[in-house]
Amino acid sequence: MSNHKKSSITEEVVLPKGFKAAGSAVGLKKGNVKDMALLFSEKPAVMAGTFTTNQVKAASVKLCQKRLSGKGHAVIINSGNANACNGAQGMLDAERMAQATARLLGVDERTVFVSSTGRIGVRLPMNIIEDGIPKAVRELSRDGGNSASEAIMTTDTKPKRCTVRFPVDGKPVTVTGMCKGAGMIEPNMATMLCYLLTDAVVDSDALQSCLTDAVKKSFNRITVDGDRSTNDTVLLMANGEAGNKPLKKSHPDWDAFCEAVNTITMNLALKIVEDGEGASKVVTIRVKGARNEAEADIAARSVANSLLVKTSWVGDYPNWGRIMDALGYSEAKVDEGRVEIRYDDMPAAKDGVAAGTSLEDLKRVQRQKAFTIDIDLHLGAGEAVVYTCNCTEEYVRINM
Amino acid sequence: MSNHKKSSITEEVVLPKGFKAAGSAVGLKKGNVKDMALLFSEKPAVMAGTFTTNQVKAASVKLCQKRLSGKGHAVIINSGNANACNGAQGMLDAERMAQATARLLGVDERTVFVSSTGRIGVRLPMNIIEDGIPKAVRELSRDGGNSASEAIMTTDTKPKRCTVRFPVDGKPVTVTGMCKGAGMIEPNMATMLCYLLTDAVVDSDALQSCLTDAVKKSFNRITVDGDRSTNDTVLLMANGEAGNKPLKKSHPDWDAFCEAVNTITMNLALKIVEDGEGASKVVTIRVKGARNEAEADIAARSVANSLLVKTSWVGDYPNWGRIMDALGYSEAKVDEGRVEIRYDDMPAAKDGVAAGTSLEDLKRVQRQKAFTIDIDLHLGAGEAVVYTCNCTEEYVRINM
Repeated sequence: MSNHKKSSITEEVVLPKGFKAAGSAVGLKKGNVKDMALLFSEKPAVMAGTFTTNQVKAASVKLCQKRLSGKGHAVIINSGNANACNGAQGMLDAERMAQATARLLGVDERTVFVSSTGRIGVRLPMNIIEDGIPKAVRELSRDGGNSASEAIMTTDTKPKRCTVRFPVDGKPVTVTGMCKGAGMIEPNMATMLCYLLTDAVVDSDALQSCLTDAVKKSFNRITVDGDRSTNDTVLLMANGEAGNKPLKKSHPDWDAFCEAVNTITMNLALKIVEDGEGASKVVTIRVKGARNEAEADIAARSVANSLLVKTSWVGDYPNWGRIMDALGYSEAKVDEGRVEIRYDDMPAAKDGVAAGTSLEDLKRVQRQKAFTIDIDLHLGAGEAVVYTCNCTEEYVRINM
Repeated sequence: MSNHKKSSITEEVVLPKGFKAAGSAVGLKKGNVKDMALLFSEKPAVMAGTFTTNQVKAASVKLCQKRLSGKGHAVIINSGNANACNGAQGMLDAERMAQATARLLGVDERTVFVSSTGRIGVRLPMNIIEDGIPKAVRELSRDGGNSASEAIMTTDTKPKRCTVRFPVDGKPVTVTGMCKGAGMIEPNMATMLCYLLTDAVVDSDALQSCLTDAVKKSFNRITVDGDRSTNDTVLLMANGEAGNKPLKKSHPDWDAFCEAVNTITMNLALKIVEDGEGASKVVTIRVKGARNEAEADIAARSVANSLLVKTSWVGDYPNWGRIMDALGYSEAKVDEGRVEIRYDDMPAAKDGVAAGTSLEDLKRVQRQKAFTIDIDLHLGAGEAVVYTCNCTEEYVRINM
């Protein structure tokens, strides 16, 4: 946001005008833990969304996709059960969750969106859900945003949230965001859920294109374990309470709006990697010189998802050979004799062989909590970046 | 080998006629451990080979590929250093290894093959190699086969070897095999090396097609961590000392020969999975009902390489949802509502939802040291099988 002096960023959920939220403990998880979140806009909001590309999709994802073209008043989210792989019954249960919420809020049920995250292949405990929804509705408040961001947590060790405020047409606009992941819920499934709320007036198509672009640059560039969930959901609600002229490409503040959305999605995406299960180091993989962008992406992901590379980052020994190996077996074209690898600014390999930097200098880079591996394939102009973390014994303990 | 009563299998290296072998401690590794193997045939042998498909290839692999069309007298193998990512110097060093061996054996250097396995990106210590080769040559003996199978070990916890004997044209023929992997060498690189020796007389093209087929059904169907090495090598030497009529497709004993080779490669491949780094369980993933064989293979590998699936097998909780998830994000076509998953013979999922088998029954399967997951996609006739292992905390400790 460096170009926009009038914008400010806060590491909290600050609800935009016209939104209320709640994070309630309804008994889906043991021990009076918050496990249901409700996000609500009095005024129907323009909706945008992106969802998992997994062919196996949770009922809540299918429901959101169906409703995305209409407006939205609310999102009801439960943790503790993913409601995935439950067939027709799962769809009925997701619809009943939306119905119960809509009835209490006094809105059309088609304006209620649903997310679930947790154990897969087990029916939603509808009695607990239906007893819980009235509690969440009662607890809705203007201050409930942070509480909601806690209720969607699973193995997350901390809530992930942030807010950007900036002017549009001279009027104050707020975009806030919260997300969870990439932790396991119960011991069964990793899921990324993210909700963005804004009071800006935004054209519907423009909103979707802004979100698609922001997700592409942030959530689609992180990887913890290479496993893509059945429940991944990003929703953006714009309720228009700020009263600005509708934001779209031709609006002078369009770029500022997109930048705010980008700032939040990138902030949240990096928080996911930092909080990756068992992770102790965040590593940025930057590939350039691939034949094209697609191959740069493939090469970066091959390195980021290599179990041998990820485990090598637990210790401090700079195993650039494993990076060469992962590049070599990727589907991206690699000419071994041209590959250059740097750890932060220290050359590790040049022309595919050791660059002569002392082991101690490379170890010093790898000992850091965060570092960047720059790879130049020297074959073309393709570039890509992926953010990832190491794979520790703790990851295995969490997921066994 | 059930159809061939006259064949016998032994879990040892029994050298075929005309072969000698040695496993020597030459000082590449610390602590007087065997780290150089030499396999030698007095008579030049017909050669067949398959090699890593990684674009980054060790010098020894490049040298073997170049020499494969000619005959072979010997293979010289070192552990402790992979001689990969060493550029032109690496090629020179591999050639020098072959030259030194050839000179002492009194054979043409082009008939000497080389393998290396160990640390990557570090020059071979040629003084140790060149002092070691004479020792290995001196230690060559008819009984040296088992010793050689120990010298190629790295993080392997036991040697992997077996021998099949059967008659061809009424004459006794031996095929023996040894392999190492998929362990790390030093802390840097996983590699699979395998050597098969036979005294059968075999036509050159037939030998290669027999080996290619056997590797496809065995070593290409196992995965420990999804990382493909720079050094993987399978070599088969047939020196013809048995004096049978040349084996090829038209020979009545051709199938018996291929079956012997298949028996050995499958035996060794399964030993690799059983001895996978940190592994405590061997899991067979069998996919059927895919649209075609290629998609069956993709689906099986997606499950076998999913970190979430592999870690779930450490405990006994039957996470079939993670299998659904890994199928769903594979590039194979999956229709969630048709997927069937069984743990051994217990149905876990049917039509994409829980099949109703008790958790305790599924847990009983997953508690075993070895079990099979049968997946039916119900979309076509494609079938594939992959053998893999779980991913434990010990895997991380070995590779960090």
